[in-house]
Amino acid sequence: MNETDDTNTAQPGPRIEIRYCTQCRWLLRATWVAQELLTTFGTRVGEIALVPGTGGVFVVTVGDDVVWDRAEQHGFPEIPALKAAVRDRVAPGMPLGHTDRAAARAAE
Amino acid sequence: MNETDDTNTAQPGPRIEIRYCTQCRWLLRATWVAQELLTTFGTRVGEIALVPGTGGVFVVTVGDDVVWDRAEQHGFPEIPALKAAVRDRVAPGMPLGHTDRAAARAAE
Repeated sequence: MNETDDTNTAQPGPRIEIRYCTQCRWLLRATWVAQELLTTFGTRVGEIALVPGTGGVFVVTVGDDVVWDRAEQHGFPEIPALKAAVRDRVAPGMPLGHTDRAAARAAE
Repeated sequence: MNETDDTNTAQPGPRIEIRYCTQCRWLLRATWVAQELLTTFGTRVGEIALVPGTGGVFVVTVGDDVVWDRAEQHGFPEIPALKAAVRDRVAPGMPLGHTDRAAARAAE
């Protein structure tokens, strides 16, 4: 999938927030996740906010929904599953190609 | 400068917004600028929002202040000058080491 746009979206898409721990040096991981999501969803997303925090935090929120919380799920999100969770909120039904197949395998 | 924190900041720092053009493929440049600023200022910044747009936009805002607008200043911001502009709003007086010297030379 390359950077796709939906330039005639009247409404700006939802805000995605990636809260990450600076003490754990997770800035690069957080910006990598942001790049993956912005490459796939383009202007369907209103914005992705990188929020520096401390204490081992790594939380991804779409609108009001927490779609990943390291404290709950331990470790880091797999990109295919994360993209599927974002797609279901940002552009329901949007095909993600191999990402859908990878997410389906992971869910088996 | 490595990733510095001011973990005992009571108040969250200001919001920085980087609005970039998806049609021009400026996502990677926008996330690079975000990484540079987050590496330097850490938790002194409240958040950096990557905002996908169209039409050649590349605008960097700190709080309510536009510190770079491609439509006005043409081209892209130099990192030392941008860091100095952010420092003056986020952490006035914070030394930026070689960045300060580079920004001073650029301003000559």
